[in-house]
Amino acid sequence: MSQASAPSFLPSRPRRAAAISTWSDTFDVIVVGFGVAGGAAAIEAARAGARTLILERQTRGGGATALSEGTIYFGGGTRAQKASGFDDSFENMLAHVRAAAGPTADPEKVRLYCENSLDHFAFFESIGVEFKDTFFAEKVIFPPTDDCLIFSGNEEAWPFSAEAKPMPRGHKPKKTGSAGAYIIEQMIDAATKLGVEIQNEVRVETLIRDDEGRVVGVVAKIEGQEVAIRANRGVILTTGGFIMNRAMVEHYAPDLAKCRYPIGSEGCDGSGIRMGMGVGGAAVNMHEGLMTTAFFPPTSHIKGVLVSAQGQRFINEDCYHGRVTDAIMQKADGRAYLIVDDTLYGQAIVRYELAGVEETIEELEKTVGLPEGQLVHTIASYNKYAEQGEDPVFHKAKKYLTPLVHPPFAALDLSVDKSIWATFTLGGLDTKATGEVLTVDGQVVPGLYAAGRASAGLTRSGRYYASGMSIGGGSYFGRLAGKTAAKAEPAVEAA
Amino acid sequence: MSQASAPSFLPSRPRRAAAISTWSDTFDVIVVGFGVAGGAAAIEAARAGARTLILERQTRGGGATALSEGTIYFGGGTRAQKASGFDDSFENMLAHVRAAAGPTADPEKVRLYCENSLDHFAFFESIGVEFKDTFFAEKVIFPPTDDCLIFSGNEEAWPFSAEAKPMPRGHKPKKTGSAGAYIIEQMIDAATKLGVEIQNEVRVETLIRDDEGRVVGVVAKIEGQEVAIRANRGVILTTGGFIMNRAMVEHYAPDLAKCRYPIGSEGCDGSGIRMGMGVGGAAVNMHEGLMTTAFFPPTSHIKGVLVSAQGQRFINEDCYHGRVTDAIMQKADGRAYLIVDDTLYGQAIVRYELAGVEETIEELEKTVGLPEGQLVHTIASYNKYAEQGEDPVFHKAKKYLTPLVHPPFAALDLSVDKSIWATFTLGGLDTKATGEVLTVDGQVVPGLYAAGRASAGLTRSGRYYASGMSIGGGSYFGRLAGKTAAKAEPAVEAA
Repeated sequence: MSQASAPSFLPSRPRRAAAISTWSDTFDVIVVGFGVAGGAAAIEAARAGARTLILERQTRGGGATALSEGTIYFGGGTRAQKASGFDDSFENMLAHVRAAAGPTADPEKVRLYCENSLDHFAFFESIGVEFKDTFFAEKVIFPPTDDCLIFSGNEEAWPFSAEAKPMPRGHKPKKTGSAGAYIIEQMIDAATKLGVEIQNEVRVETLIRDDEGRVVGVVAKIEGQEVAIRANRGVILTTGGFIMNRAMVEHYAPDLAKCRYPIGSEGCDGSGIRMGMGVGGAAVNMHEGLMTTAFFPPTSHIKGVLVSAQGQRFINEDCYHGRVTDAIMQKADGRAYLIVDDTLYGQAIVRYELAGVEETIEELEKTVGLPEGQLVHTIASYNKYAEQGEDPVFHKAKKYLTPLVHPPFAALDLSVDKSIWATFTLGGLDTKATGEVLTVDGQVVPGLYAAGRASAGLTRSGRYYASGMSIGGGSYFGRLAGKTAAKAEPAVEAA
Repeated sequence: MSQASAPSFLPSRPRRAAAISTWSDTFDVIVVGFGVAGGAAAIEAARAGARTLILERQTRGGGATALSEGTIYFGGGTRAQKASGFDDSFENMLAHVRAAAGPTADPEKVRLYCENSLDHFAFFESIGVEFKDTFFAEKVIFPPTDDCLIFSGNEEAWPFSAEAKPMPRGHKPKKTGSAGAYIIEQMIDAATKLGVEIQNEVRVETLIRDDEGRVVGVVAKIEGQEVAIRANRGVILTTGGFIMNRAMVEHYAPDLAKCRYPIGSEGCDGSGIRMGMGVGGAAVNMHEGLMTTAFFPPTSHIKGVLVSAQGQRFINEDCYHGRVTDAIMQKADGRAYLIVDDTLYGQAIVRYELAGVEETIEELEKTVGLPEGQLVHTIASYNKYAEQGEDPVFHKAKKYLTPLVHPPFAALDLSVDKSIWATFTLGGLDTKATGEVLTVDGQVVPGLYAAGRASAGLTRSGRYYASGMSIGGGSYFGRLAGKTAAKAEPAVEAA
């Protein structure tokens, strides 16, 4: 009877509405999963007048968002951008996000996201999320302070820097350190005030579908008991991605399966994607994800030289960490060393094995086992150009160019099988921008919506991704799903 | 009414059997598309006693096979291998084919293919395809003579050469030059003798499904008229891949969309994949394909040095041409130059633009616009090692290692936007080894089979592919589909 907790990559079959003898309750909109997408969906549904229920499997909402640093990708001239002296525009933001969303992105989602960025910023303020009007200039994964703006992606890195005027668009709420949980707390408050009913510790693994094919509710498991709850206007799946479901990762995303550290909450097990597939929803972009190894901070590491097992560079080291890591996987076959000198070496969050520490590059090359003469050439050439403030080979920005001349020299092993690579998925249910789930035919699955990592959203590729696009895209398209579901024609209940 | 000839990536909806007033004829098995997979399926179905029909859209069978050189991948100790002194075994073949099928391959298909390779060789002989017991030693795309055996993949190239004992497994039938059309002619003869009915110039774009969900026939368009033809045991889709369907390629396979030259027949427009999807078949591996630019022969070009826009090598040049090309796309961002000296330069099939011809490498580097000093180092280092018969950086085999020292030096532009890259798709319907089409649930679609490029078959990735795996895998799993369909429980016709 129960749809099994054992990980599986197979779709979860729905239950027939006609077979439900008792509905425990009826709502307009049911949101499954209270991460940032679910919270945003519920808030907008409630604001539009829908009687709204959120079902969350944990003891309190949060999802992957609450575990994150809470950066949100906004642009086009936010208050924080203006106050910090950055003159961003819709067109400039669009030029970058088009690239950052990846080659398989949905142009409609990209356009809407950029067009409505200021409104989306206002949405977060409207639910009490505060942002300081400050810029944190150092290249970090997120500001350790309560500062707001950072360059959170590839904006300043070649070739992106040449394609659009670089603007910082990562906005972290006013909170020292991580702010993800803070965002969710504001959402829980806002949703509660709007009358959204929130039930925690509820598992949803089965949708309920009527004989016309419309999704009209969910089977909720509460303290071991199954109850059927009806949603007359729509069910919104905001259950996260599938990185915690080993069977799905191995089946769909072999590259991600090589990474040691899944990023997500326990709920990121693909349950929503599998439920959506079970009623005909198409799962797309399933082989893609973000892979990253946090070799900086310290930012001095960005001044290091990343080389392959051939002793060659293959990417500008000042790209977003996810893009650098993607290059290690795709261009260097998963094996790479960060070469630093004594002045650049520092302690990263991830502890990297030292493949060698030597007084000369020649010795280091030998110790690491790189082919003779290659690292020597790479560093000599890099140093020569760095002295002139140039990197004609991979176009690292001038501010990160320093000759490596202070022994000892070290090689940090960033290889996928030797260090911690973190990863999350970027594939999920195919949706319209409104969150309506699509079949492989391009038809809408009536009554079903998805947003956040349960859907294939704004960004589709770790090679181009920027921090803030998951929370940004998840919440923006969550909001659209909430609005759309709230206004949907209600299902007619069988007599 | 008609399912449109306009290219679309959407599934083709089936027709209801109950709505068919007249069946023009009834067969046990209908095979759609007479390429090598369709021919093999029909022959085995007929041998198993099934009344079999092949519907082919062209004026004569052939498909992509007839346009190809006709190499078939066999191993494990064929007569040709033994006669040529190669001591192959099942285990050794399996070790290589496991790698060559790619990381997302179906291990069951890989195992069966290797286990039954000698039987499959015998199948071709049984239908009159002749093979000479000779080996063509030069590394070519296919022997220009009527010789049989070649190294048709990555067997001799690092790292494959270190993982399994290199054996030639490309078997070309005894025909000077291309042999693909010859294979098909033997199949047409054999099928005809077995009583298979062959109808050419028939379009099939719609399946017919009964109310229990079983596929029971096809709508065939013959001279503009639609007729319904019944298949009581099974319909086998052997319609080829989708490289000729621009909408599908752009939707599913953005990398392949960058290549100028689609490899296939007019029929490779995804019609079978779309029909299969329309009855719930899952399409998998859709973003993958083979990309290749034929920079050799002349084999002297393999002795050239392939560099990226950074002037760096990134792959051993003696890999299979498809693997080299995949590396240009994935590791060098689609841009690469083959550096040759006067003794190595020759005329390739593809005419490459010369990005530069100069008396020295220094000048060539400047003319091509490579970053100063990089090509100079690459060639100097390559030459130094080549003199010692070594390539410690990318492990090119000794026989292709020659220092580039004879001016003038030339750079052939192999970039995807500057030269001819040929491509075909490697995604399609998900099938069991028996050819039974699977839903995204892993359930069999009753009455429906697929083989050849209409299915996701033996090989799933251009990075590992070898010539002969398409005709080999297509025909082998076509045979299994034919046998399985012929023995299937017949559908019960509604009164």
